[in-house]
Amino acid sequence: MESVEVKSYPPNRTIPKDLLPHRMKQILAFALAVVTCCYTPIALRAAPNIVILFADDLGYGDLGCYGSPTIRTPHLDRMAAEGIRFTDFYSASEVCTPSRAGLLTGRYPIRSGMVPGPTGRRVLFPDSAGGLPANETTIAEVLQAKGYATHHVGKWHLGIHPGSRPQDQGFDHSFGFPYSNDMDPIPGLAKGSSGLADPPLDGWNVPLMRDGKILEQPVDQRTLTKRYTEEAVTFLRENKERPFFLYLAHSFPHVPLFASDEYRGKSRGGIYGDAVEEIDGSTGTILDTLREEGLAENTLVLFTSDNGPWLTMHAQGGSAGPLTDGKGSTWEGGMRVPGILWMPGQIEPRVSSAPVSTLDILPTVLNMAKAEVPNGTILDGQDLTPLLFDGKTLPDRPFFYYRGNELYACRIGEWKANFVTRTGYGPERAVVHQPPLLHHLGLDSGEIRDLGSQHPEILTTIQEAVERHRAGVVPAVAQLP
Amino acid sequence: MESVEVKSYPPNRTIPKDLLPHRMKQILAFALAVVTCCYTPIALRAAPNIVILFADDLGYGDLGCYGSPTIRTPHLDRMAAEGIRFTDFYSASEVCTPSRAGLLTGRYPIRSGMVPGPTGRRVLFPDSAGGLPANETTIAEVLQAKGYATHHVGKWHLGIHPGSRPQDQGFDHSFGFPYSNDMDPIPGLAKGSSGLADPPLDGWNVPLMRDGKILEQPVDQRTLTKRYTEEAVTFLRENKERPFFLYLAHSFPHVPLFASDEYRGKSRGGIYGDAVEEIDGSTGTILDTLREEGLAENTLVLFTSDNGPWLTMHAQGGSAGPLTDGKGSTWEGGMRVPGILWMPGQIEPRVSSAPVSTLDILPTVLNMAKAEVPNGTILDGQDLTPLLFDGKTLPDRPFFYYRGNELYACRIGEWKANFVTRTGYGPERAVVHQPPLLHHLGLDSGEIRDLGSQHPEILTTIQEAVERHRAGVVPAVAQLP
Repeated sequence: MESVEVKSYPPNRTIPKDLLPHRMKQILAFALAVVTCCYTPIALRAAPNIVILFADDLGYGDLGCYGSPTIRTPHLDRMAAEGIRFTDFYSASEVCTPSRAGLLTGRYPIRSGMVPGPTGRRVLFPDSAGGLPANETTIAEVLQAKGYATHHVGKWHLGIHPGSRPQDQGFDHSFGFPYSNDMDPIPGLAKGSSGLADPPLDGWNVPLMRDGKILEQPVDQRTLTKRYTEEAVTFLRENKERPFFLYLAHSFPHVPLFASDEYRGKSRGGIYGDAVEEIDGSTGTILDTLREEGLAENTLVLFTSDNGPWLTMHAQGGSAGPLTDGKGSTWEGGMRVPGILWMPGQIEPRVSSAPVSTLDILPTVLNMAKAEVPNGTILDGQDLTPLLFDGKTLPDRPFFYYRGNELYACRIGEWKANFVTRTGYGPERAVVHQPPLLHHLGLDSGEIRDLGSQHPEILTTIQEAVERHRAGVVPAVAQLP
Repeated sequence: MESVEVKSYPPNRTIPKDLLPHRMKQILAFALAVVTCCYTPIALRAAPNIVILFADDLGYGDLGCYGSPTIRTPHLDRMAAEGIRFTDFYSASEVCTPSRAGLLTGRYPIRSGMVPGPTGRRVLFPDSAGGLPANETTIAEVLQAKGYATHHVGKWHLGIHPGSRPQDQGFDHSFGFPYSNDMDPIPGLAKGSSGLADPPLDGWNVPLMRDGKILEQPVDQRTLTKRYTEEAVTFLRENKERPFFLYLAHSFPHVPLFASDEYRGKSRGGIYGDAVEEIDGSTGTILDTLREEGLAENTLVLFTSDNGPWLTMHAQGGSAGPLTDGKGSTWEGGMRVPGILWMPGQIEPRVSSAPVSTLDILPTVLNMAKAEVPNGTILDGQDLTPLLFDGKTLPDRPFFYYRGNELYACRIGEWKANFVTRTGYGPERAVVHQPPLLHHLGLDSGEIRDLGSQHPEILTTIQEAVERHRAGVVPAVAQLP
C-alpha cells in the first residue's frame, strides 16, 4: 500500500491502489444518493463516521495482539494489523463510571463531578441520585449538532435521571442498560456469585431498555453481545447515507460472565475468554459491515476498554499482561488498556508507543467533524489527527492518573511519578510515597525499579506539571454519593 | 489463501494461488539446475531445508507479537503472521547449556549428562572438562548423513573439547564462539559490569572462531549480530542448490549487551530492546534471503529462545510478560518462550496453543528429511508434522520441567503440577510442595491459584506420568562439573 504524506484532515492522499475499486463503488453510491435523495447534504456526507467499541474491564493482556496466551482474537488482531495499535493507551480513570465520563467529555472526571463524595462510592449505583451533569458536552452532542445520527448501544452507567441519560447527552437513540450487569442483584440468588465461572442466569434484575423503556427484565445476559451487535449492524446499514456516531459499550467481560452458545466453552480461558472472544467476533461483524457498505475508509473506529482487569475475580478477571495491578488501581495495569484506532486507507498501519488516552478522542473528533464545544469548555485531551493521519510525533504532555478525586500519579514522556499507590484488590490502604516513586516505563513497564534518587530533576518537572494542573482544576460537585 | 488438507509430509496440497508465480520460478530454476549442474541429486533437492534461529535469554514477553509494550519486532511479527505462533512453546531447560543439548538431541538433558554434578555448576564454563558426549546424535548429524550442508553460526556452549565441538556433532562448518559472551571476563575490566546498560567493550576475552581457529579475540561484540547475519546469508546463497541446515544461535540478548550503530539507542527498551530489535532485523534479512532465492516454501524456519529472561539483570534482563519468574526457574517464565515456525505455502498461518517444545524439533526433522537416529536412541520429543501440515491435534503428553537433574514440575494438557519451585533470581532456596501445586494454565497463566485440593485425580494422573518417566530415565554421567 502506498503511503503518502498528508498535512491535514481530511486526508489529501493518493488512494491506495488496492482500494480503488472500493472507492469507485463509494463514489457511484454517493452519486446515486445525491440524485435520488435530498435527505443528506453533501457537506455532511463528507464528514467522517465515528464508531467507539468499548469493552468493560478488559485487561491490557487480554487480546491476542497484546500477548494473551489463552484468548484468541483474530478480528481484533486484524483490526490492529490494519490500523494503529497503541502500546500506551490509557483509560481516563481506573473504574467504570468516571472512565466513561472522561471518554465522552474529553475531561478528567473530577471536572464533571464523576467522583466519590462522602459515601466513598466510586461508581454510580441504581439508587444513586447523581449522574453526568446536563451541562457537560459529550462527543454525541457535538456530532448530533453537526447532523450526525447518534446511537448508544450497551452499557451506559452515567446516570438514569433526566439530564444524565443517553437521550439527554446527545444520543438520538439508546439500546442497552443503565448500569453494570452485576447491579440490582436478586436477593437469595446472586449474592456472592458474580465472580463464578457459571453464575446464576436469573441472579440480576438487569433491564434491557430501548429509549428509556424496558424491553426485558431481567434480560437474558447470554444474548447481550449478540443483540448489541445486531443493533449496531442495523444502525450502520440504516444510516449509511448520513454521517453517524455509534457508541457500543459492551457489558462484558465485566462479571457476571455469560456468552452465547456459539462461544460458550470454546475458549481456552474459561468463560472470561469466551466473553472476550464473543466481543472479538462482534468487532469482526461490525468491521465487515463497514467494509461491505463501503464505509470503512470514511469511518474512524476505536476499540478500547474502560479500565484494567478486575483481578479480584481471579479466573473470571482477565490479565494486565506484564503490567502491575488492575482495575481500581493507578498502577499501569489499572489504567493502561488495549487501544486500537482503525480507518483503512487513511491511517497507515503501525504500532505506536505515543502515550494517548480516551481523553484525546473528543478533541480528535472535533477536528475531524469540524465540530465545536461551547466557548470556555476546558478539555484535557489533545487532537490526535497529526499523529493518526500525518505520522507526526505529539509533543510530550502530562497524563494524570486519578483515583476518584485524588491525583495519584503523573506521566510525562517515558517517566511516571507515583505519588500514592493502592492496589485494586485486597485490603491494603493507600501508600503515600515521599519522595514519590519514579519509573521509566520504556525500561520498566512493570514499575518495579524506583529511579527517583537518580533523577530528582525529572521528579521536579513532573511535580511542577502537577501543580500547574491542580491550579487549573475546579472540582465539580461530586455526583457519585 | 486456499487451505487444503494434507495427509503426510511432503505436503500434497494445491499451491495457493498467490504463490503460483513463485512456484513457477522455482520450477524453472530447478529445471535449469538439473540441466546445467550435476552436483545436486534430485532426491536431495526434494528434502526440505531447516533453519533454526535461537535467541539467548529472550523472554516470553519480549517480541511485539507476544505483547511487548516496548520492543518493536516487525519482522518477527510478520514471520508469526505467516506461520504458526505458539503460545505454549517450551525450551528443554531453564538455562543455556542443557537447553541447547535438548534442542539438538531431542532428549531431556539428563539423558546426555548436560546436568550439574557435585560442583553445582549448571552450564559449561571455559574451564569445564565436559561437553555434549560424542555418542549423542544431533539434528546436524542426522541431516549431514542425508547429504545436507550443515552450518553452525553463533554461540555454541556445548563443549570445547574433541567429541563435543560443532565439527564433532555434525556441522560441516562453524562460525561463532564457544560459550556465553559474559564468560572469560578480563580482570579489572568486566567485574560486575555485565548487567550494565553500557558495559565495557573490552571487558570479556571472548574469541570469534571459524572452524575451531580464532579469528579475533576479544571480538568486538557490537559486530556480532551483523556478522552472524552476513555469515548466514552467505551460507544460504552458497548452498541453495543443496538441502541445508542452518543453526544460528544468537549471542544476544544475553548480557553484556551490545548493538551495532544502526540499532544502538533506537529502541524504547534500552540496550536490551536494541539488541532484540537487531535480532529482529537479522531475522528479516534471513527470511528475505530465503524468499529472494525461491527457498521459502521449501525451508522450515524455527525462531525461539534457549530459556526465559534473566530477571536479575533488571532493565537489561527482558520480560516474561504475564508469566511468573524467568531464567533459572521452572515457573512458566523460565521455560515458556516465544516459538514461531514458518514455511510459507506449506504451514497454514495461525496461532496454536498446543504445548510443544524444542525437544520436538529433532523428531519433526527426522520425518521431514526421512532421516534416522541410531537404533535404540530414546527420544523425548514428538513429530510435529501432523500439527504443522495437516492441522491435526496432538494427543496430550507429559512435558517435564527439569532444573538440572531434578524434576520440578510436569504438565499434561492444561494442567501443571509444581512439585518443587525456586525463583531464578534472589537468594531463596527450593521450596518442596507437599501436596504439589496444581495450576490450570488456560485459566491461570501466572500460576497463582492452586487447584490441587479440587482436583486430586489430576494430580494423581500427573504423578503417575512422572513415575513412568522416571523409570525410563538413566541419568548419564554429569558433564557440567
